[in-house]
Amino acid sequence: MLKGKQTLVFENKPVILASAAVGGPFEAQGQLAQDFDILNSDIWLGQDSFEKAEKVLQEQAINKAIEKSGVNQKEVQFLISGDLINQITCSSFTARDIGMPYFGIYGACSTSMEGLTLASILVDSKNANYAVACASSHNAASEKQYRYPTEYGGQKPPTAQWTVTGAGAVLVGQKGKGPKATYATVGKVIDAGIKDPYNMGAAMAPAAVDTIITHFQDRGIEPTYYDLIVTGDLAGVGHSIADELLKRKGLVIPSSIFKDCGLMIYKQDQPVFAGGSGCACSATVTYGHLLNRMRKGELKKLLVVATGALLSPLSYQQKESIPCIAHAVSIEMEEEEG
Amino acid sequence: MLKGKQTLVFENKPVILASAAVGGPFEAQGQLAQDFDILNSDIWLGQDSFEKAEKVLQEQAINKAIEKSGVNQKEVQFLISGDLINQITCSSFTARDIGMPYFGIYGACSTSMEGLTLASILVDSKNANYAVACASSHNAASEKQYRYPTEYGGQKPPTAQWTVTGAGAVLVGQKGKGPKATYATVGKVIDAGIKDPYNMGAAMAPAAVDTIITHFQDRGIEPTYYDLIVTGDLAGVGHSIADELLKRKGLVIPSSIFKDCGLMIYKQDQPVFAGGSGCACSATVTYGHLLNRMRKGELKKLLVVATGALLSPLSYQQKESIPCIAHAVSIEMEEEEG
Repeated sequence: MLKGKQTLVFENKPVILASAAVGGPFEAQGQLAQDFDILNSDIWLGQDSFEKAEKVLQEQAINKAIEKSGVNQKEVQFLISGDLINQITCSSFTARDIGMPYFGIYGACSTSMEGLTLASILVDSKNANYAVACASSHNAASEKQYRYPTEYGGQKPPTAQWTVTGAGAVLVGQKGKGPKATYATVGKVIDAGIKDPYNMGAAMAPAAVDTIITHFQDRGIEPTYYDLIVTGDLAGVGHSIADELLKRKGLVIPSSIFKDCGLMIYKQDQPVFAGGSGCACSATVTYGHLLNRMRKGELKKLLVVATGALLSPLSYQQKESIPCIAHAVSIEMEEEEG
Repeated sequence: MLKGKQTLVFENKPVILASAAVGGPFEAQGQLAQDFDILNSDIWLGQDSFEKAEKVLQEQAINKAIEKSGVNQKEVQFLISGDLINQITCSSFTARDIGMPYFGIYGACSTSMEGLTLASILVDSKNANYAVACASSHNAASEKQYRYPTEYGGQKPPTAQWTVTGAGAVLVGQKGKGPKATYATVGKVIDAGIKDPYNMGAAMAPAAVDTIITHFQDRGIEPTYYDLIVTGDLAGVGHSIADELLKRKGLVIPSSIFKDCGLMIYKQDQPVFAGGSGCACSATVTYGHLLNRMRKGELKKLLVVATGALLSPLSYQQKESIPCIAHAVSIEMEEEEG
């Protein structure tokens, strides 16, 4: 038991019965296209606003995850969901149409692992037989809200990142086959004083480092315990900074097992600046590609460290720095567990 | 056990070791002024923006609740917090300065009970010895974001509500004296098709009704089990509608035990239109006035049904209706429990 620490222990090892990743046309051209369950060719998804399109992405991911699990939707008790849009309306409108009891969460791009943590607590504590967690983002909806409408054609520096259009959902249950959520390290908000919203990776790196170091301290294990440790969306700039900061603090993670979802999702020739970002970045890479690899037996022990930049356009205008957070969830295949 | 239902059971009965309510100058003139721990005379709280002022309200409430509990702040493991401001920056910046592992949540004005539910799950499941939940709102920050800056002097219809400036915080622990969280009914998102953001009470009433009926069905008890059932911020228009809808569905709650925080917080001669609203409405009334009454022995069994309107200015502009939610937490004094 780690009671009194930052790391939650899921003693009953909730099972990820199914997961789903959905994306847009840009993700269809990416490195991990084959791991998406649905790839939409239209960024509008037939809707008349990008926010409504993002809601459809959430619905696709949630419905697909439930369908793949074989669980009757009526037996899924709780939906935990979040996104980047003001007042997380994409999530709330989805919850309205899905009709499940709902916890709305906000953790910026760390939402995926915040949601998986809460779903796992609900199942692990026997308060739910099944819970589903979802996170989404939409490139054009985010650009419009945080920066400029894409039609404006604003220039960006190479440290900028590309918001993933997509959604990832995960269905957690008491029993069954599949990867299990075993531990979760809930992040503290860390602010390194960076104020440039075009350099989120650098801003988020210290939060990732803080959570990673805490996770290994709390569990008393070495990084090589895991087959793979992925950060959420630090991308090119931030991931190198995190690696350097970890080394300075004495924690060396071999580069062969230390990756970043924002560097995995797109191809090198796609114009994504430093890499992918957005709630859907770690959500789609984890709930699509990485869990698929676990199910194939290619990975047994995975640590997902989803990173979030908790700024708003207003906090930036008010000249605040960017507070960041990272939540880590340990996902392990059952045959490896005692 | 109610596993499989919408209502969570806190079998280990987490204790509300302390709670705190803080407010602004308008709340100081209200009906419940004596139940606030801190009443600020300046709506700016010495800050240069209303959002920063709201952050200070959260810090005041959290620090006061911890101080009153006598628990060392370092022993409080998790902070769960939310507010109405885009990307809940008030909560995230507070979490940065408070330094605790943090879950950001968004449930509009239902945030108070969403937070208490999650804090109770963390403690009940033995994943935390202590957890603190907080919710805040600031009248001027909300007016600016949702409607117009107050300086503009926009007119409002009598169905409008007055956003409470304040914050409420609650510290939940494993053991000790005080009111206990015993059950929580997690709400579904209900949308009655109302599109008028100046009539939130009417929009939220059906969500409150859905959660209240579910709570009594799941628990198999009658409304008179409780000494008091309070809705969050339905105010004058919404509370009457909820009462009428409940009666039509066959659930009669005697008017002597069915109240609304939005109708309790201010005096009749304060110009608050239909009544109070905002995350701080149910948070300050519950964590101040109502828990004080429980501690004095005036109330033994309390059901708080916090209501939230999950719209955004953008969803309104896009001509969407207002999806609403209500989360209910049953709070009971220990001597009454078997």
